Amino acid sequence: MAPTKKGILERLNAGEVVIGDGGFVFALEKRGYVKAGPWTPEAAAEHPEAVRQLHREFLRAGANVMQTFTFYASDDKLENRGQSLKLTGAQINEAACDLARQVANEGDALVAGGVSQTPSYLSCKSETEVKAIFKKQLDVFMKKNVDFLIAEYFEHVEEAVWAVEMLKATGKPVAASLCIGPEGDMHGVSAGECAVKLVKAGAQIVGVNCHFDPLTCVKAVKMMKEAVEKAGLKAHYMVQPLAFHTPDCNCQGFIDLPEFPFGLEPRILTRWDMHQYAREAYNAGIRFIGGCCGYEPYHIRAVAEELAVERGLLPPGSEKHGMWGAGLEMHTKPWVRARARRDYWENLKPASGRPLCPSMSNPDSWGITKGDTGLMQQKEATSQQQLKELFARTKSN
Amino acid sequence: MAPTKKGILERLNAGEVVIGDGGFVFALEKRGYVKAGPWTPEAAAEHPEAVRQLHREFLRAGANVMQTFTFYASDDKLENRGQSLKLTGAQINEAACDLARQVANEGDALVAGGVSQTPSYLSCKSETEVKAIFKKQLDVFMKKNVDFLIAEYFEHVEEAVWAVEMLKATGKPVAASLCIGPEGDMHGVSAGECAVKLVKAGAQIVGVNCHFDPLTCVKAVKMMKEAVEKAGLKAHYMVQPLAFHTPDCNCQGFIDLPEFPFGLEPRILTRWDMHQYAREAYNAGIRFIGGCCGYEPYHIRAVAEELAVERGLLPPGSEKHGMWGAGLEMHTKPWVRARARRDYWENLKPASGRPLCPSMSNPDSWGITKGDTGLMQQKEATSQQQLKELFARTKSN
Amino acid sequence: MAPTKKGILERLNAGEVVIGDGGFVFALEKRGYVKAGPWTPEAAAEHPEAVRQLHREFLRAGANVMQTFTFYASDDKLENRGQSLKLTGAQINEAACDLARQVANEGDALVAGGVSQTPSYLSCKSETEVKAIFKKQLDVFMKKNVDFLIAEYFEHVEEAVWAVEMLKATGKPVAASLCIGPEGDMHGVSAGECAVKLVKAGAQIVGVNCHFDPLTCVKAVKMMKEAVEKAGLKAHYMVQPLAFHTPDCNCQGFIDLPEFPFGLEPRILTRWDMHQYAREAYNAGIRFIGGCCGYEPYHIRAVAEELAVERGLLPPGSEKHGMWGAGLEMHTKPWVRARARRDYWENLKPASGRPLCPSMSNPDSWGITKGDTGLMQQKEATSQQQLKELFARTKSN
Amino acid sequence: MAPTKKGILERLNAGEVVIGDGGFVFALEKRGYVKAGPWTPEAAAEHPEAVRQLHREFLRAGANVMQTFTFYASDDKLENRGQSLKLTGAQINEAACDLARQVANEGDALVAGGVSQTPSYLSCKSETEVKAIFKKQLDVFMKKNVDFLIAEYFEHVEEAVWAVEMLKATGKPVAASLCIGPEGDMHGVSAGECAVKLVKAGAQIVGVNCHFDPLTCVKAVKMMKEAVEKAGLKAHYMVQPLAFHTPDCNCQGFIDLPEFPFGLEPRILTRWDMHQYAREAYNAGIRFIGGCCGYEPYHIRAVAEELAVERGLLPPGSEKHGMWGAGLEMHTKPWVRARARRDYWENLKPASGRPLCPSMSNPDSWGITKGDTGLMQQKEATSQQQLKELFARTKSN
Repeated sequence: MAPTKKGILERLNAGEVVIGDGGFVFALEKRGYVKAGPWTPEAAAEHPEAVRQLHREFLRAGANVMQTFTFYASDDKLENRGQSLKLTGAQINEAACDLARQVANEGDALVAGGVSQTPSYLSCKSETEVKAIFKKQLDVFMKKNVDFLIAEYFEHVEEAVWAVEMLKATGKPVAASLCIGPEGDMHGVSAGECAVKLVKAGAQIVGVNCHFDPLTCVKAVKMMKEAVEKAGLKAHYMVQPLAFHTPDCNCQGFIDLPEFPFGLEPRILTRWDMHQYAREAYNAGIRFIGGCCGYEPYHIRAVAEELAVERGLLPPGSEKHGMWGAGLEMHTKPWVRARARRDYWENLKPASGRPLCPSMSNPDSWGITKGDTGLMQQKEATSQQQLKELFARTKSN
Repeated sequence: MAPTKKGILERLNAGEVVIGDGGFVFALEKRGYVKAGPWTPEAAAEHPEAVRQLHREFLRAGANVMQTFTFYASDDKLENRGQSLKLTGAQINEAACDLARQVANEGDALVAGGVSQTPSYLSCKSETEVKAIFKKQLDVFMKKNVDFLIAEYFEHVEEAVWAVEMLKATGKPVAASLCIGPEGDMHGVSAGECAVKLVKAGAQIVGVNCHFDPLTCVKAVKMMKEAVEKAGLKAHYMVQPLAFHTPDCNCQGFIDLPEFPFGLEPRILTRWDMHQYAREAYNAGIRFIGGCCGYEPYHIRAVAEELAVERGLLPPGSEKHGMWGAGLEMHTKPWVRARARRDYWENLKPASGRPLCPSMSNPDSWGITKGDTGLMQQKEATSQQQLKELFARTKSN
Repeated sequence: MAPTKKGILERLNAGEVVIGDGGFVFALEKRGYVKAGPWTPEAAAEHPEAVRQLHREFLRAGANVMQTFTFYASDDKLENRGQSLKLTGAQINEAACDLARQVANEGDALVAGGVSQTPSYLSCKSETEVKAIFKKQLDVFMKKNVDFLIAEYFEHVEEAVWAVEMLKATGKPVAASLCIGPEGDMHGVSAGECAVKLVKAGAQIVGVNCHFDPLTCVKAVKMMKEAVEKAGLKAHYMVQPLAFHTPDCNCQGFIDLPEFPFGLEPRILTRWDMHQYAREAYNAGIRFIGGCCGYEPYHIRAVAEELAVERGLLPPGSEKHGMWGAGLEMHTKPWVRARARRDYWENLKPASGRPLCPSMSNPDSWGITKGDTGLMQQKEATSQQQLKELFARTKSN
Repeated sequence: MAPTKKGILERLNAGEVVIGDGGFVFALEKRGYVKAGPWTPEAAAEHPEAVRQLHREFLRAGANVMQTFTFYASDDKLENRGQSLKLTGAQINEAACDLARQVANEGDALVAGGVSQTPSYLSCKSETEVKAIFKKQLDVFMKKNVDFLIAEYFEHVEEAVWAVEMLKATGKPVAASLCIGPEGDMHGVSAGECAVKLVKAGAQIVGVNCHFDPLTCVKAVKMMKEAVEKAGLKAHYMVQPLAFHTPDCNCQGFIDLPEFPFGLEPRILTRWDMHQYAREAYNAGIRFIGGCCGYEPYHIRAVAEELAVERGLLPPGSEKHGMWGAGLEMHTKPWVRARARRDYWENLKPASGRPLCPSMSNPDSWGITKGDTGLMQQKEATSQQQLKELFARTKSN
């Protein structure tokens, strides 16, 4: 580790912008190294060159944080996969730490060890049992001396609090990030109250990740910030959203969209959407700004480019990118050259190329089960009204 | 090189399906190693680990061809970039050959050296001058002993014929692929006539790549096949289309779409679209089936999975992919489990998540120049009629 | 007047469903008798045959209420039109009463005299002055002995209360209907509070009309009903919404949509949308169910057909309409015959036929003025975020 | 009849623009007087006031032709309806003539007696039998002394030729209009050849009506004109298209769209679409310009307004319509006033308000029968490819 590197809290306390990386499971699924469904990170040990390369790309895009590729790498989750894995949880977690550290050392990035929600909690195991699960991963993180810790992708603040308590005990800086939207967690705890609980449990950085599109996530973090400040507490804020447009999803996020996970392509954000996101997040006072599922390196680069003035630097990857389409300036066709300007891309309303497809879907989850045609018809009958109600429930202040 | 590996013509003559790789410039642009605009491949020498990794991912996805990353690597094109490149054309081309060979040797793949259209031709240089440009790259390909050669991404069959003549002189098998659609080349030569010219010039494999979506490209190759057969000639056929839906583009393809190149995300094909494409291409008698701009490794894997029975094998990457969504079978939510079936994904009409965006665009290129508001208004007034006329012109038999 | 006809309150007290008519200004604009912009009803006197015919069509469609075509027929509004009208307000109002009475007598319908919001209120005239304006129309209604009175299309409950006070003084039954949505009136009074004020002022029937699509209006009336019941008051409920889909409009309704009023066609509801509306309204306990702008006679007929069992009769116009597409049963093409069934039409997602158009718009009104390009750009930059915020504001409970 | 009125050929020979009326069956279905499915015109006798009013509205909108409401009023068609009609064909046809004459006399309009395709032809009756069917209607038209005759809505030019031969025998001017698009008639006769046959049979005016949207119809008439001129013949040209956008329909037109006939609302043209249509038709040399299914009076008025300079007058209905939205000039909200200009409406891309709906449909008719799930699945599998092929087949020159 570079001894002179500033820690995560030093950076945030100094008011710096910290750029996160993007999500690994979706990016590596597209590259052929993660299986959709289980979403486990055994590739860290099986195909280290692929994982290392993705780390490098995010670093090059401007990321200041290399999260260990340890999502769903708790022992109870890995065991769900049965015979298919020949590796222990420790092997996977250790490999992930080594990769993150190797690449972090190549640039201005910190290593963050990450834990996420567990099957043990969802199957109602005790606090003691769940904490023991986190402990195993934490032992690896401490052995590998990561720079800080993140508890991320929790649907229930209760489990996240348990995780924070365990993380806090290590003495490392702790970030906590729920996969919730403005409606709050799956037990009905409001976003604001979730944040207060996490801060009280010891998290120095709180926010949300995954499940919703960038602007919805920024909105949820704003609610967290208001509540934390109202409670007289102090914290830093983070946001690592999807790179998918999800105006139509309900409180459980993109999992319930009919397109999840194999038909989300039309929803992928452009780099220009990322500029808007980065600006909104910055304006909301969020300083740890990254991504989750759907992010490719160029999305993170766009975040870094939007905040280049604030950060005082462009990312290395900008050597291969003209700002606002400048790379088109020498095109032979004048109408393509005419696209080399900011307002062109900011105002473009990109077509889907899919005239047989709608612009929104009805999320599943209204009690539909396979083969239950009665309920299926009920779903079919689901009207724009339900969609609108949904908007109201999901997005209202 | 593995000495026992069957050559490209042996495979095609035996009726085998040969899976191509995907396009490198778009994939590496997203990863941060290619600049949109120039689209040159200096990353082969600058960032070999990134290029090697992409080769590996396509190999893992099932590709039998590793195309050297030498697109736009002719000296005249590289010189356009001026001072920005510190590498010679030979250095770039050699590095690209080495990377392709290294990865090809890791599996059942051949190395194809590729040349593409030149600025020299577009600026009306002589046949001798243009051929001299090709010669430089060919010298590298022969030195590095590639397995076969591809002349690809030519808008004018005349230049492609010149290229084929040069390639043919090497004694290697020759493939020729134009970036045209069913309307033919930019000088008005029909797709069928283009193919006949290329076969007569010595190409053993002919087809199209880039510029149009898969089913449009298959249609163009069908026209080529009909014309070649009608002329009493013999050839094999190849297709390497975009991974973007482009129902609305005119004869010059996706370059003229307003979304090119930074707003194409909503048009990205799903893996299920790829299944349909692979089947259509196979049914049309095309046996060299790959991809171009927009392809990610999982797109190629989907092609390989659709044709697994015909090829008698699944690609290595299928270890991380359940067919038709099978990976969702153990999901906790019944409505997500209900997605683990073929008809679900085949019938899904994926939403764009963009209610403010249309489903089609009007291509640019009707004489619009920047600042010419008269013409700009004319463009604005462009109606659905023009769009429909366009369809007719572009897609008619 | 048919002496045996039951009054509006008798019907509602008996639990009967009362079907309203549709809006006259939009329907007659399409027919050529009303000018969009002023929207005044001088056609009642100028072209009585056209107005009479529209009354007859709504009667035939099942309407039990003939509203006098006196929208915007207050003297202060008519004077705004300056020299263009050669008729006095009294002439127009009297002609409208005569037409409504004539047609009401041809079937089972009542005549409702209607007043609507005044320019006097909007220009801050006193309560006395505004009430004097209403008085002029009421004098005509009393002279013509209408069956009951409706104060409709008020954006501010304060003015509506003044109107109700005036109407109440006549001794006729009084209905009051605001053109607001779930967000409440333009002074920020909640929908529920508006309803309580109107009931306290003497209205026996309260609800909303115009400005929003049917399901949004039903939602607003539900809020009114809850508040009235919570206040320990009693009332009947009415709803007369737009026949346009307006999921994207803000608190001021469809006026602010960019398509208002000359580009609303793609938003027009189908008859099947009307079935859903009628059922939702009925289920919400609303018993006076009609329509406003955008309604054609077949829309009202669909409402009457959906509630045929509850009402114990089909409307006369159903002689020319097979339920759920039954009229297609004898079509020569089997695939058209296959459309003669309820689930086909209930599940149809009708295409717009407009691939260059989006599915939603951003409402105007964020401070845009003509020629103010700065603000115009600001509008252009309006993102999906704003749209979603809007949903939240408009539709939240 | 007003003796001084110029006849249809006099007008066209003088180069005048003749404005047609809109279709009656769709307009009167919405008003409650025509049953979708049979589409027969018994309302002419049953509800004359409703039919008269619609005539008046089209006259007011600028129409110079009052077509007798005798669509599908041949005896063989009426008999299909069995016991439900208490009127003879002669009664219906006579009533329709009287209504058209009465209203034509109120303005500058001619009466056109119309015949349309017969069930006799479709069930393969002989030329003699089919002509006898036409004869019955013609006897009424001659008795009532209509001004000219139109054979319209024929899918097969063979039957249309028979009709023209019968019409021609009366000595009245004859127009002939097929319900075909650019692909030609249902027996595969090209649009151009159809026109030549009709002119040779004696029609002085030829064109198309119904089944396709305006610009598609204009395109078909252009093809007719070219062929007639190439054959050295002379004719006048007419076009009376749908008021629905149908970019996605196949050679049989809107009948095969899944939305036909009860879900077509989102496809309805705006008045601004009509301006474009009128201009295109005029520029194509067509001088008899009207409408068919989906037209409301304001659509015809827009045609008349677009051609006001060429015709030297505005229609009477323009007293209630400001050109290009001028009626909004005095609106209280500045952003609504900003809509009072031509470029605003010309450039508006109106939203559908239906985010769950696509922009295009796949037409039915690829061998689908009810209950045949195999074929139904085949239809479901119909891809954008088929849609694009369709475009090509339908719209190509």
